[in-house]
Formats: sequence, C-alpha cells, structure tokens
Amino acid sequence: MTIGGQFPMHQKQVFCSSKCQIFYSDDPFMVSRASMQYLFDEHGNQFLDCISNVQHVGHCHPKVVEAISKQLATSTCNVRFVSTQLTELSEANDLALRLGRDYTKHKDAIVIEHAYHGHVTTTMELSPYKFDHGSSVSQPDWVHVAPCPDVFRGKHRLEDNELTDEEKLYAAGKQYSDDVKSILDDVESKKRGVAAYFAEALQSCGGQVIPPKDYFKDVATHVRNHGGLMIIDEVQTGFGRIGRKYWAHQLYDDGFVPDIVTMGKPMGNGFPVSAVATRKEIADALGGEVGYFNTYGGNPVACAAVISVMKVVKEENLLEHSQAMGEKLEVALRDLQKKHECIGDIRGVGLFWGIDLVKDRKTREPDQKLAIATILALRKSFGILLNADGPYTNILKIKPPLCFNSDNILETVTAVDQVLTLMNR
Amino acid sequence: MTIGGQFPMHQKQVFCSSKCQIFYSDDPFMVSRASMQYLFDEHGNQFLDCISNVQHVGHCHPKVVEAISKQLATSTCNVRFVSTQLTELSEANDLALRLGRDYTKHKDAIVIEHAYHGHVTTTMELSPYKFDHGSSVSQPDWVHVAPCPDVFRGKHRLEDNELTDEEKLYAAGKQYSDDVKSILDDVESKKRGVAAYFAEALQSCGGQVIPPKDYFKDVATHVRNHGGLMIIDEVQTGFGRIGRKYWAHQLYDDGFVPDIVTMGKPMGNGFPVSAVATRKEIADALGGEVGYFNTYGGNPVACAAVISVMKVVKEENLLEHSQAMGEKLEVALRDLQKKHECIGDIRGVGLFWGIDLVKDRKTREPDQKLAIATILALRKSFGILLNADGPYTNILKIKPPLCFNSDNILETVTAVDQVLTLMNR
Repeated sequence: MTIGGQFPMHQKQVFCSSKCQIFYSDDPFMVSRASMQYLFDEHGNQFLDCISNVQHVGHCHPKVVEAISKQLATSTCNVRFVSTQLTELSEANDLALRLGRDYTKHKDAIVIEHAYHGHVTTTMELSPYKFDHGSSVSQPDWVHVAPCPDVFRGKHRLEDNELTDEEKLYAAGKQYSDDVKSILDDVESKKRGVAAYFAEALQSCGGQVIPPKDYFKDVATHVRNHGGLMIIDEVQTGFGRIGRKYWAHQLYDDGFVPDIVTMGKPMGNGFPVSAVATRKEIADALGGEVGYFNTYGGNPVACAAVISVMKVVKEENLLEHSQAMGEKLEVALRDLQKKHECIGDIRGVGLFWGIDLVKDRKTREPDQKLAIATILALRKSFGILLNADGPYTNILKIKPPLCFNSDNILETVTAVDQVLTLMNR
Repeated sequence: MTIGGQFPMHQKQVFCSSKCQIFYSDDPFMVSRASMQYLFDEHGNQFLDCISNVQHVGHCHPKVVEAISKQLATSTCNVRFVSTQLTELSEANDLALRLGRDYTKHKDAIVIEHAYHGHVTTTMELSPYKFDHGSSVSQPDWVHVAPCPDVFRGKHRLEDNELTDEEKLYAAGKQYSDDVKSILDDVESKKRGVAAYFAEALQSCGGQVIPPKDYFKDVATHVRNHGGLMIIDEVQTGFGRIGRKYWAHQLYDDGFVPDIVTMGKPMGNGFPVSAVATRKEIADALGGEVGYFNTYGGNPVACAAVISVMKVVKEENLLEHSQAMGEKLEVALRDLQKKHECIGDIRGVGLFWGIDLVKDRKTREPDQKLAIATILALRKSFGILLNADGPYTNILKIKPPLCFNSDNILETVTAVDQVLTLMNR
C-alpha cells in the first residue's frame, strides 16, 4: 500500500499486528473470489462456506451488487442533507446504550455471561466474551452479568425427571429470569439504576444458545418494573436467519416486544451498515443539547444495500427457505447425534445451528480439541469452511448465507459424519 | 422501508429522531445526484459543493466507482481469512486510544479545547466539542483539556508588537506547548499517567485552526518525557488535502513523527472506511489475551476504495493541484479581507480554509448570525453549498473535493463578496 503517497511514520511495509484475529492462522485462507454459498481460494479451488452470516443472501448476490454499484455512481453523500439513523457495526450497540441511558437517566447495564456486543471500548465493556478472557478492557462497575440461559451447559439445565420437555423449558425460563430479577433488586439496593438489559436474541459467539420459553417475556417484566429498557441485539439473527420469523426475538410468539433493537451485518450483505430501531420518545431523548451525527449515517449506498437485501429476502422467499432448511438440518443432525457419542447437543433454528461436542455425554465436558480438529479436516479434505465457537470453542457453528440448499446440507452433514467416524468418535 | 419484511416493534413509519443533525434544517437539501464538485437537488438544479471533504477526489469519481463495483462483484468478505487493520470511522480513534493505553499502561488522555474525535461513547468523552456543549456524555476524570493553539482567538494571540510574524509564531508555539507541559506535570502529581496526547493535525470542527510553529514538536517532547504517545487524527486533513504534503502533521518540515495516526473519511471517497497506522511494537501491545476483530476490518471492498483513491490522488497530481488552489485562495481571500471589515481572519492551506467572521476586528467578537445568513444566501442565490463551523459557528469552512478548480474558487469568492456587500458588511 504505497500507491500514490507515503503512509505516515516512514514505514515501507504494511504489517498485520500479531493481535489481529484470523481463522486458520497457521495456514491462512486467501479468498480470491466469492459467489453465493461458495468461496474460492487463490488457486481457484471451490469451498462451501458455512461461516459467512454477513453475506446474508449470498456472496456477491448479483441484485445486491447491482443496487450498490448503481447508487455508488449516483451519490455516496449524505453530508447531513438527508439523514436516517443508520450507523455502523458495534456503533449500533454503543448508540443503543446511550439511548437507554439518556431515556432512563440510569447508567447500569445487565448483560449475559459470554455475551459479545462489539469491539469499541464501550461495547467491549458490555462483553464478558472479551473482558472475562484476558482483554485489557475490564468489567466496569456499571456492568452486571446474568447467567447465560443455556439449558444444556448453563446454571439451570434440562435434567432427566418426570416433567415433559415443554414443562422443563418453562421452568428453566422462570429460573433464569428470576436470576435477572435478583440482580435488579441488588442493583437497586445499592442506589444504582439499570438503564438496560442487553442481550442477543439468540446468543451466537457465546455458544449458539436458544433461551428457554418465556425467558425474555419475564425478564422484560422485571426490567421494566425497575425502570429499565430491553435492548435486543439482532446483529447475527435478524432478517430471516431463523426461518418463519423476520426477527429471532419473535421466535416464541409470546408477544415480547423490545424497546430497542440493534441490527447489522446481514442487512448490508457485506456492505458496512447497521441500524438502531426504537420508539420515537426514546430516540428523541438522545444526547442532551447536542444532536447525533455520524459521517456515514444515512449513507444512500448503505440504504441501497439494505433495501436490495430485503427485496431479495422477499423475492427469493428466504424466510420459508431458511425454515425448511432448518427442519432438514434438525432431522439430519438428530441422526448424526444418535451415531456419535461426542455430540452432546444439537440446537438451532432456521440456518442458525450449533453442534456441541463433548468428551462425555453425562458430564457434558466440552471437547475443544475435537472441534478444532474437525474444522481443519473439513477444510482440508472436504472443501468445507465451518467455524468452532462458544466459551469453550467446542461448538461447531453453522450459519451460512441463506442461499444454502438441501445439497449443501447433505454435503456438510455427510462430511462431519465421515470426519467424526475417522476420528473414531 | 417496509420492503420484504416488517421492521421490529410494529412500526409502520420510519421517523427521523429530532436529535439527528441535518444541514439547512428548515428547508433540507435533497441530493438526487452528485458528480465531482457538484451536487444536484431533487429538481436537477446544480450546486457547487464546498463542504464534502469525505468525497475526497470528487463525488462518484468514475475510477473509484469502477474499483469498488468490481470488488463488490468479486468478494466482500474478509471473514478473518485475510485481515489488515482497517476499521471504521470513529472506531479508528477508539482503537487508537486503546493502543495507547495498552502500550503505555497509562489511562489518561490530553485533548484540545473544542476538539471533536467521533461519535461513539469513548470518542465523545475525548471531544470537548460535544461534552462542553450540553451533550449527555460528560467529561470523564481521565480526560484533560489543553488550550486550543489558535493564535487568532485563543489564549495566546499574535498581537501587534515589535516581533516579526515568524518570531510571534514560534513564541506562541512555545506558550501553547508549555500549557501541555503544565497539564502533564499536574497529572503526574496526582499519581496518574497520560497514555496519549490526542489532536487533529489541523483542528477542523474546532475552528479551522493551524497550530503555530514547533507546537507539535515541543508537545511531543513533553508527552514522551512523561511516557505518553502522540496520536494525531488526520481524518479530515490527510491524503493531500493540505497540498504539498500527504499529511497535515508534516506541514512544517520540523521532523515531527507521531506514534499513532488515525485516518478516515477521504480515504474511501464516501465508502465507509478508516484506519489506524502505528509502529509494530505498539500494535502488538493491543488487547491483552484477546485479539482484535472487527467484522469489516480488512474488507476488500474498502481496500479497493482506498487504493483507487490513492491512485487518483497520484494520477491527477492532486497534491500539486491542492497546493496551487490553496495559493490562489489565499490571494483571493486576502483581497476579500481588505474589502470587508467583518472578515477578522482568514487561515488555511491547500483546500482547507476558514473565513473567521467578526462583529469587530479589534475585539474579534465572533459573528455567528452573519455566518449563518451568508451560507443561506450562498445556497439560495448562488447555488453554492458552504458550511459554518467552529465553537461559535462563525467560521465559513471551505473544504471541497480536491477536484475543486480555479473557476470554482473565483465563483465562490465572488459570491461571498457579493453577499457580504449586499449585507453591507
């Protein structure tokens, strides 16, 4: 990058900091080209992509490329002439917290164990995924961490007993929401106030977790009783990823409505864009005397990207497709679980799934080593890119672009089957 | 925006928060199309744009559009496969602060009066432009504010005395850098430590301020003596805006080299992108155990945008052009100042200029009302878009795309002349 002028500090080389995270760090994957659910390496080899939830409707989807290119050639400029509330990435969560604070006049926030809400300083302070794992950003006194509503490995689990599965899920929902209530009472007793409860609709990096029934609904009652707002991060889960519903917080049809929703990644299909949606009275409470301004806020190219993504989701019936693929994945993964002792749990909906690998089904001890060996073998021998995540890096995550089809599912599940069989697990 | 699916919270309408800043708020300007230094309103009327420093080499410059569109159709995806340190917008300043803190193990920062470094929570905490003007974000204990090195309206001014102009500028540089030294001594006496001195190379929103001679060089000596780093924000001033030099901090050829440089806006010509440049040992100190990750970091579309902007700057000799236009502007504005008592000061370099409007040349009292009336008249009667800024909103800012030419200068200066004459000032 020395074209046209020198970079500052007389540096001749551009280096990558040792602290930049890359996948496959021992043998980085170089993307030369991408198309729908496929990536091509520098030699032109095709790989099936089970990772890229950002390129929501398919890498370089022609309709999205056309819409963005057309707008790029027309105007890129908002220059404060027209402005919506579009913002970028973790800035959406930063702005949501400010909205919550300015509206409630409280300062504190409740987040979920293992949560990740973005990489700027304030959102890292909201992210136990970062501050519990050796980051130089530490947990501030205004952040309170609630147990992760994970019924497989969390504090309250679905155990073998006389209850039906449905009854167990309601019971766990109550237990986890009561934990949030205890935090609220505790915060109030210290003469502090909670501005917002902040959670992903389905926890993603934190382990592909689907909260039990009535959890959000009951948490909302407690939080609102204490004057706080419900902020739901749909950055990874919105725009039809979960099938049937446009937003993951609508999963249970229980009438739960958040006060603020943040969204990002998939909405631009790779174009940097995010947004905060809220009620007018909350938006109007922002910022005291000074207004809100963001150089790229309302950028018409970003808007063109978002509108084209939403059109493609509709025109290609991607909600129905995602729902149908989720049902196929569930059947295939249940069969896989029967065959392999190392699969402790499978959980998911639509095109958002986790395969929880364990050393022992009874103790549920996570098997990170197996997960990492599996993703390396999938890349090397099968041309499949899949990621391992979760607090113990033992969960195989499947969240591909929504054009992922039945053949891709068969190919992926068969490959995982063969890898686990070869590893004798 | 109801295409393809419902937005959350059952909202049928998209509204703009009353807290969103827009120009010409009583009669918003709707951009239908943009090309090089011109904007077109919804009726197709052409306006000369003196505002858009983001669209650095010209709105929708065909080479930049082509490069971005081509990359959009090839791959948008970094997915951590390849990664550089590209980040977005005010996230660059947030990351720079984290780098400074992690490297020095200090927490505090020194910023300049009226400074603006971005709109996320942490960068607002670094911005007196926000926290001194009624924002709900207030000045934290770790932020210390140094006087703005403005020799026209600041604490130490160039007054009429026996010294030469050059001698006055060196004297003011020493006075302002000594002010920073006092803050450093004071912070140290309180057993705190300064991680970084944080300043724009030329203060932009804060009033188009050009610091006096040796100011940064002397500040750097003091800051480094106290174990801190020099972070220079080139977001508004880099990539040849100031003519002759690629970066504004190189203006005085005094050998000053920052430890960290942040850049944004112009580098993508409207595509959202920014970057942090630093030395390897500082980058490697980031973040403790966890790495750095950003969804759009190293986004190849952003890289294509930046590379094409740098190519255009080189191929079209925009440094030389900006330098030449700056010299023409200086001559024309000096003439204008002789004619109009209300012009207290003109200052600038390259295509970065300020016209400081005053009620009285002796007292230098800022004339906000005149500045606002002027920009409205320029739009209405001359088709020229120009902005007023600075802590008292009395400074006419000229920082157009770099393709701004001699005819545009003549047109703009003539129009300002006529408006001020009509207003009898």
